Amino acid sequence: MQAARCHNLGMLNPNRYFHPEPGTRQIARELYEIAAQFPLVCPHGHVDPRILAENSPFPDPSELLIIPDHYVFRMLYSQGVSLESLGIPRKDGGWTEADRRKIWQIFADHYYLFRGTPSWCWLRQEFADVFEIEERLDSGNAMRLYDRIAAKLAEPEFRPRALFERFRIQVLCTTDAATDDLAHHRKIRESGWGGDVRPTFRPDIVMTLLHPSWRESIGQMEKQTGISIGGYRAYIQALERRREFFKTMGCTCTDHAVLEPYTAELSTQKAEEIFIRALGGHATVEDDRLFTAHMLMEMARMSVADGLVMQLHPGSFRNHNQSVFDRFGPDKGCDIPVSTEYTRNLRALLNKYGNESRFRLVLFTLDESSYSRELAPLAGHYPALRLGPAWWFHDSLEGMMRFRKMVTETAGIYNTVGFNDDTRAFLSIPARHDLSRRVDSNFLAEQVATHVIEKEEAEEMIRDLSYRLVRKTYGFDR
Amino acid sequence: MQAARCHNLGMLNPNRYFHPEPGTRQIARELYEIAAQFPLVCPHGHVDPRILAENSPFPDPSELLIIPDHYVFRMLYSQGVSLESLGIPRKDGGWTEADRRKIWQIFADHYYLFRGTPSWCWLRQEFADVFEIEERLDSGNAMRLYDRIAAKLAEPEFRPRALFERFRIQVLCTTDAATDDLAHHRKIRESGWGGDVRPTFRPDIVMTLLHPSWRESIGQMEKQTGISIGGYRAYIQALERRREFFKTMGCTCTDHAVLEPYTAELSTQKAEEIFIRALGGHATVEDDRLFTAHMLMEMARMSVADGLVMQLHPGSFRNHNQSVFDRFGPDKGCDIPVSTEYTRNLRALLNKYGNESRFRLVLFTLDESSYSRELAPLAGHYPALRLGPAWWFHDSLEGMMRFRKMVTETAGIYNTVGFNDDTRAFLSIPARHDLSRRVDSNFLAEQVATHVIEKEEAEEMIRDLSYRLVRKTYGFDR
Amino acid sequence: MQAARCHNLGMLNPNRYFHPEPGTRQIARELYEIAAQFPLVCPHGHVDPRILAENSPFPDPSELLIIPDHYVFRMLYSQGVSLESLGIPRKDGGWTEADRRKIWQIFADHYYLFRGTPSWCWLRQEFADVFEIEERLDSGNAMRLYDRIAAKLAEPEFRPRALFERFRIQVLCTTDAATDDLAHHRKIRESGWGGDVRPTFRPDIVMTLLHPSWRESIGQMEKQTGISIGGYRAYIQALERRREFFKTMGCTCTDHAVLEPYTAELSTQKAEEIFIRALGGHATVEDDRLFTAHMLMEMARMSVADGLVMQLHPGSFRNHNQSVFDRFGPDKGCDIPVSTEYTRNLRALLNKYGNESRFRLVLFTLDESSYSRELAPLAGHYPALRLGPAWWFHDSLEGMMRFRKMVTETAGIYNTVGFNDDTRAFLSIPARHDLSRRVDSNFLAEQVATHVIEKEEAEEMIRDLSYRLVRKTYGFDR
Repeated sequence: MQAARCHNLGMLNPNRYFHPEPGTRQIARELYEIAAQFPLVCPHGHVDPRILAENSPFPDPSELLIIPDHYVFRMLYSQGVSLESLGIPRKDGGWTEADRRKIWQIFADHYYLFRGTPSWCWLRQEFADVFEIEERLDSGNAMRLYDRIAAKLAEPEFRPRALFERFRIQVLCTTDAATDDLAHHRKIRESGWGGDVRPTFRPDIVMTLLHPSWRESIGQMEKQTGISIGGYRAYIQALERRREFFKTMGCTCTDHAVLEPYTAELSTQKAEEIFIRALGGHATVEDDRLFTAHMLMEMARMSVADGLVMQLHPGSFRNHNQSVFDRFGPDKGCDIPVSTEYTRNLRALLNKYGNESRFRLVLFTLDESSYSRELAPLAGHYPALRLGPAWWFHDSLEGMMRFRKMVTETAGIYNTVGFNDDTRAFLSIPARHDLSRRVDSNFLAEQVATHVIEKEEAEEMIRDLSYRLVRKTYGFDR
Repeated sequence: MQAARCHNLGMLNPNRYFHPEPGTRQIARELYEIAAQFPLVCPHGHVDPRILAENSPFPDPSELLIIPDHYVFRMLYSQGVSLESLGIPRKDGGWTEADRRKIWQIFADHYYLFRGTPSWCWLRQEFADVFEIEERLDSGNAMRLYDRIAAKLAEPEFRPRALFERFRIQVLCTTDAATDDLAHHRKIRESGWGGDVRPTFRPDIVMTLLHPSWRESIGQMEKQTGISIGGYRAYIQALERRREFFKTMGCTCTDHAVLEPYTAELSTQKAEEIFIRALGGHATVEDDRLFTAHMLMEMARMSVADGLVMQLHPGSFRNHNQSVFDRFGPDKGCDIPVSTEYTRNLRALLNKYGNESRFRLVLFTLDESSYSRELAPLAGHYPALRLGPAWWFHDSLEGMMRFRKMVTETAGIYNTVGFNDDTRAFLSIPARHDLSRRVDSNFLAEQVATHVIEKEEAEEMIRDLSYRLVRKTYGFDR
Repeated sequence: MQAARCHNLGMLNPNRYFHPEPGTRQIARELYEIAAQFPLVCPHGHVDPRILAENSPFPDPSELLIIPDHYVFRMLYSQGVSLESLGIPRKDGGWTEADRRKIWQIFADHYYLFRGTPSWCWLRQEFADVFEIEERLDSGNAMRLYDRIAAKLAEPEFRPRALFERFRIQVLCTTDAATDDLAHHRKIRESGWGGDVRPTFRPDIVMTLLHPSWRESIGQMEKQTGISIGGYRAYIQALERRREFFKTMGCTCTDHAVLEPYTAELSTQKAEEIFIRALGGHATVEDDRLFTAHMLMEMARMSVADGLVMQLHPGSFRNHNQSVFDRFGPDKGCDIPVSTEYTRNLRALLNKYGNESRFRLVLFTLDESSYSRELAPLAGHYPALRLGPAWWFHDSLEGMMRFRKMVTETAGIYNTVGFNDDTRAFLSIPARHDLSRRVDSNFLAEQVATHVIEKEEAEEMIRDLSYRLVRKTYGFDR
């Protein structure tokens, strides 16, 4: 879709992101034409299923494109723009800018800050492809473009489900707490609409003994499962029950975020002791660490049993900026990566479950130094292990290229899983997939141009990277 | 200046360091032509202010180009050339080569070792641009070139101030101990000469309780400030007084070198206890570590108050080679980087002062794995934080390109500060800035050629990277 | 040899691995033509000397190319192919596939997995250059190619010594336990055949107190040296005696694998205590760690005395997959790198011996983050230190290029040692050297094309990188 349309757009060169050498660029372009034919498979992301359940018009441009996008307001904040002036809601209900046009003007005034960043690439493609805006946003045209976007959003073909179809999204997985009732997913399924939207089981809170909402979430699980969680065994049973429920709603994978990917099995007795301490409100930091390490093992065990693909996202120090967290809450651009160790941390889990071909563990990192040192060697050996794509800060032109160059020589492309857009921003989905397909096409084109692989091999590989691997890994073909 | 002149030089191709693909090269060249027009802004370096205060002729070529340059003699030493034979002064006054022509000959004999290093690029540009030498130095022409350089150095237009003007240095900051009397700076200011030379406040010794000269430096501060430093409060007061004095001499920034960038605030009582122990000569290693962590917080607090830009250079294990240190002292090419952690170490400081827009912390690293993992995410969030350029071993063609490619996508270019030459070698200043401008032009040209940004955007960005950002960050525009 | 032949082969483009920009590619090609003229110098590898001692025909294609190559079966295993089905021998003698044709068919069916990996590059060049096979292996032609290779292997010109000469191997070093009797080396030397095959002294087991075979190996050393090893002094004496023996057999270097490169000298008394505990079977994990750190110092001391070049390969977590190790033993693709620290760990050894020009320590890494941070600065200072080439997982097109780009600017090329093929796979030696020479040619061509160096300098440098440096470093020119 993008490829066909962008010929007509001044701002989007059809050869963007391809190698400047003409021969290589031409090969990249030809590979990309293959990639662009495939629909979008979105196995991991954070789109709110409510928008597809309700299918209401999107709100105004600022609420759609700025207020929920931590990539965007993070950059403005880093240059002294207050979060209040951007309309980010305060936890205490204190004043934040309510005039959406003012917010948009501030955004336009600072739009130059994004030059050379992925937000720059995504946003201009959204403007061009979704809203048919060929101008670059700036202080002068800000209000005019605001009005133009607002007018489009009022049209029926800009409703969420219409865009879902226009974007050619074949399947979209959301991310849902273990205690989520999946009401929106139920509503979508019962609506008769054909869009394939699936939940993902994310039990971070119920696995984190010291999480402020842990006790409350255990209570919710008790209600939802009818199991009285007085001890560790019941807790495990309740988790298994919840996974079953998620599966009935189309779920094919789980997702787990941890600071360090430490895995270690506890004896049932030890797990029981810690769990009882936690129920009593007396869990220690070390209890929490050991229990999380143990529960990752348990999640792998359950995945072997029920076939859910297990995703692990370690290495983000959440809410680094305490005062922003206190005022605005989580996910405000204050999560900062830390150095992450995989070889020793994952040994217990991989030794126990890594040789199981029917188990699938998809691993991510924010620490690029682990690509060639730990992740590619691990994925190039353990049958259960696959590498997720370049993640978060690395979901970018250079970041993806580094991922491919550092991983492929040891793990091949077949131990990677294709693209995840991982986005909260529904409208950015096509731009993100398009950028990824362009990078992969360019990566393969360089290999063709330097005679590492033949053109026909690259053609097979771009089909794998754009479509086949993601469907296979996440079990959509089962 | 360089651009205009080098057309006439056989050895300096005007397209050097630009992408080999002709279209990209042409864009790089055009961006560079913009960059080359700007004067040089030098906010961080180690030029001895004495040379500009006295304005005497530079000594012979060996004393000018070899003996003080640890980049140069380090490489020769690594291949078995003794430091004595290169005339490096010994601490015990023992024999070192006094014949400067012999030293130059050894240098010429080993000049090939520098192939592909930044010293190679800088030196040949110095030879070409400063001394109009178009030949490559080798064993055969060594003495002839020595004589030619020596003859030039005797001419009035090769005096330091004349070169300062010829180099188009707009402002030059030196690095000065907190206890420096700034006599050379005073002399420059009182001379009536128009060159803008400024001190930088570097309190490493007075902040390092276990430094051999700590007690002596405290004594010097007492004399200089008239404050009797019997305890922690007086110590803080004296430091504030010294900062005031530096400001009166034109100082706009401070500089801090630490092994790890650990920051943590002590209670005043705890700081007092440690300080009293140190005065008594009983400070422990842990005292030293905690006190440095605390004093970094204090320096940030003072910067918020007095507006001095705070620079932090962590991660160098100084004087790794004990026997070289024992014979020749510090800064002899024996400082080796270590892995450096920023996310957790800087949290205390950034939580307390990082949200202050009027505070400016410029951060450097020798650990490139932290660029995309920690530094860019931090700088892309905290308003006070900016990233210094690729530093020391990474102040090079590939090093700078890695910096831009790993940092820009997350932090943009506007959370970086432009170039620092960081040099002791006065004559290398134009070559270093020129190389940096070429790399930045080339970086942007690749983005234009691959349609990430438009040419006119790149033109704005090269103005920012070459001139505007450095002036803005370091407060030269105030 | 390769260069001349591959013009005739469809699959091997003579410009493979060179920059796609035509001008740069042409320079790379011209530099490569120089490189390709040199014979192969192989100072570090794992070829079994038995094959050259016996000079029997190689076995069938599967036993030659699949069963011993952990690069190959690791990748197949990672995608769910069992090691049993590939004929990898089990420790317990249990069933593994005996039908070599079936194994070959599985390999062919999964050959696509290697696309873009070094095995892909090496294998197709082996097929083309050694066996004159121009087709790509696939499921369909598997049996035909098996037969063709099998037929070739039966010809006299495919015997090991004939290939050794055809490959133009000038010298080949093997890797041999300190307790090896070097019978195969003796047989080669006594055979009258002119091939230069040399042992390498690898005392890992006798230096690792907790190794299961440590006690047994000490016993072997006692028999071999006639020294009764009742204590530390006798142990040292026996090691010195073994080094002498290896030297009489042509040995020029030692090799040491450790998890971390920690070095620290023990007092003789402390070393004695630990050694006695180990003899009694009571050594602790800490004893083992300290003793290894101490013995690295001792090995350096002995190298200063006897001139053997010391090689250190740290950072591999061996046998990460316990169940594969239990069934199949070591070297089954289950060794995973870990983050490795050099600056602090090597300080003791480098302080004591690093300033000795006659000592040569060649250092390797699996942790690329240490290239620019620690290894290049260390090698760019200490006279004794040289950097080994990109190792193991990094012995690849991108891996080698990263090595050159991250190391050269700080250490130059003259503190590196040229190429090591490090291979068990005798037939892959020419392909590995060829790939390395192409990468180096391409690296230098980029520098010529961007005017960092002149063409004639690059011509000197490619001679150094392909031939001169390795001969000089490893003492083959003495």
